[in-house]
Amino acid sequence: MKRTDIATLGEFGLIDRLTKDIKLTQKSSIKGIGDDAAIVDHGGQRTLITTDLLLEGIHFDLVYTPLKHLGYKSATVNFSDIYAMNGTPQQITVSLGISKRLSVEDIEDFYSGLKLACEIYGVDIVGGDTTSSFTGFTVSITCIGTAEEEKTVFRNGAKDTDLIYVSGDLGASYMGLQLLEREKTVFDGDKDFQPDFAGREYLLERQLKPEARKDIVNMLAENGIVPTSMIDISDGLSSDLLHICSQSNAGCLLFEERIPIDYQTAVMAETFSMNVTTVALNGGEDYELLFTVPLHLHEKMNNLKGIRLIGHITPPEQGCCLVTRDGQEMQLRAQGWNPLAEE
Amino acid sequence: MKRTDIATLGEFGLIDRLTKDIKLTQKSSIKGIGDDAAIVDHGGQRTLITTDLLLEGIHFDLVYTPLKHLGYKSATVNFSDIYAMNGTPQQITVSLGISKRLSVEDIEDFYSGLKLACEIYGVDIVGGDTTSSFTGFTVSITCIGTAEEEKTVFRNGAKDTDLIYVSGDLGASYMGLQLLEREKTVFDGDKDFQPDFAGREYLLERQLKPEARKDIVNMLAENGIVPTSMIDISDGLSSDLLHICSQSNAGCLLFEERIPIDYQTAVMAETFSMNVTTVALNGGEDYELLFTVPLHLHEKMNNLKGIRLIGHITPPEQGCCLVTRDGQEMQLRAQGWNPLAEE
Repeated sequence: MKRTDIATLGEFGLIDRLTKDIKLTQKSSIKGIGDDAAIVDHGGQRTLITTDLLLEGIHFDLVYTPLKHLGYKSATVNFSDIYAMNGTPQQITVSLGISKRLSVEDIEDFYSGLKLACEIYGVDIVGGDTTSSFTGFTVSITCIGTAEEEKTVFRNGAKDTDLIYVSGDLGASYMGLQLLEREKTVFDGDKDFQPDFAGREYLLERQLKPEARKDIVNMLAENGIVPTSMIDISDGLSSDLLHICSQSNAGCLLFEERIPIDYQTAVMAETFSMNVTTVALNGGEDYELLFTVPLHLHEKMNNLKGIRLIGHITPPEQGCCLVTRDGQEMQLRAQGWNPLAEE
Repeated sequence: MKRTDIATLGEFGLIDRLTKDIKLTQKSSIKGIGDDAAIVDHGGQRTLITTDLLLEGIHFDLVYTPLKHLGYKSATVNFSDIYAMNGTPQQITVSLGISKRLSVEDIEDFYSGLKLACEIYGVDIVGGDTTSSFTGFTVSITCIGTAEEEKTVFRNGAKDTDLIYVSGDLGASYMGLQLLEREKTVFDGDKDFQPDFAGREYLLERQLKPEARKDIVNMLAENGIVPTSMIDISDGLSSDLLHICSQSNAGCLLFEERIPIDYQTAVMAETFSMNVTTVALNGGEDYELLFTVPLHLHEKMNNLKGIRLIGHITPPEQGCCLVTRDGQEMQLRAQGWNPLAEE
């Protein structure tokens, strides 16, 4: 029997192969696989559904991840997917596979982070499944949200000449992860692991306790702006912008000098001898919103805080390009974090 | 710092502790934790949500579980929860943590079972998350369904004198599991593991490829019957009937001689020197529907096929009792399969 190694396909290749023949047959299924969230319509408002599976050793390391933070992050990364559809998260279900190493107090810590996130974002915990795990800690969260039909934003709506914006800054979460990994190696075996993170709190917070950009979605709504396309940056700016372009059948020009990078991110990249643009393009886990708006909104967008114009959409035949600081055009590639790729 | 071992609380104790202070704050959250599915209302029909986490080594053993069957079962056990609310499953999301041992073809087999179940039950696959797993194969499915507001059935509606019915027969799935485990031990180490299961197909099918009782829900609807309470039997008849009684603040009388048991189940219990009533009460994974209807429907219920009257609801002070074949009354106990209990 033929046995194809999954690494030869990677995450997106595997998903493609498994789901290419899946058709929607129910009248209530509006949008299936391929965006930040699925959409179902049971009358009334549209219901958005997104789900994330987080596995110990793959997505988090309990050596340096406080369980309260992990609970918080498990919730916000799902909220982020709902905001990326221009929706409002409303409910989550929480499934946990609990390894024997964890105590009741550990799980309570996890839940306290989860509950805090839910309180801040106005989301209810409505169900889930709890079981033991022979192996690592397993977290599966599904988030249910709502969106108005005419205001739902997909990945596939970007048009030629649209402006590309991103919220916040990029690369900090990745540098936070590098920092934690380095300290873990240095302190390996030391039970009283208390590294000095002074002055780097921003990087750690971006990695360990990211927020979802509810504020950006609200700001756009208050200003009557509905993006033509939107995605949240989980895999990395490159990978996620390429999702928008391929699903919109469009190209793009992205300007390196416009990519927003925090001072701490730049300093830490320097320390690690990493190219900070590469970090911002491919680091991922930023949970910022990447979206496009029509060109004629340029002036209006100029007045909005917390977002940055980073490029514009082009015809598909021009491809997806990064314009470097010295004016060179380079093809944009997805080098985002891919947990199923070959190492 | 205090560290309480999770086994001291068990699954239900832990869930209680974690969720006792969770309140619903959103107008759209109708029903939270504590039933077969949660209910949200975004206008129009009510939306039901249920989720199940299946972990290798805990919930399934890939030595004797064909991946196609596992895919089928992963879907139907979720559909079963939606039917237990008198609802209709409409969509699922599928999250997989894939261990390196599995090939692309293995995952395709899993998906073929999943797709088959979805086709048969009229359900769409609308999303999910796919990642690698350092450890075992991890399956997390969330099912979205609909229900009419006045026809939704909860666990908490059973009233004194209501009749208790169960669909199909009980204990077969558990005996199927025993059979598979025994053959696994016998053939341990033999790569060409081909045990002879002739004449025991029913037990194996009940364990490996269970159906959800859509037919029973449809039959009740066609006859204009809305149960006062309902649950699907996943933990075992005892445990799940006790859920109905405690949530309805009621007692019950369950008659041993009326518990439906298939001939093959009885024979296999005999072979294994097990008490077949214990198997039917506590085996679990039957995915049959357990429900109550008002006494005055007795005659009407008599004409329905595929269900069995097994007892009736009593005042809470009478407790939950099993009437044995020789007329003794015994207190009913939950000895259902509890993956977080102390061994």
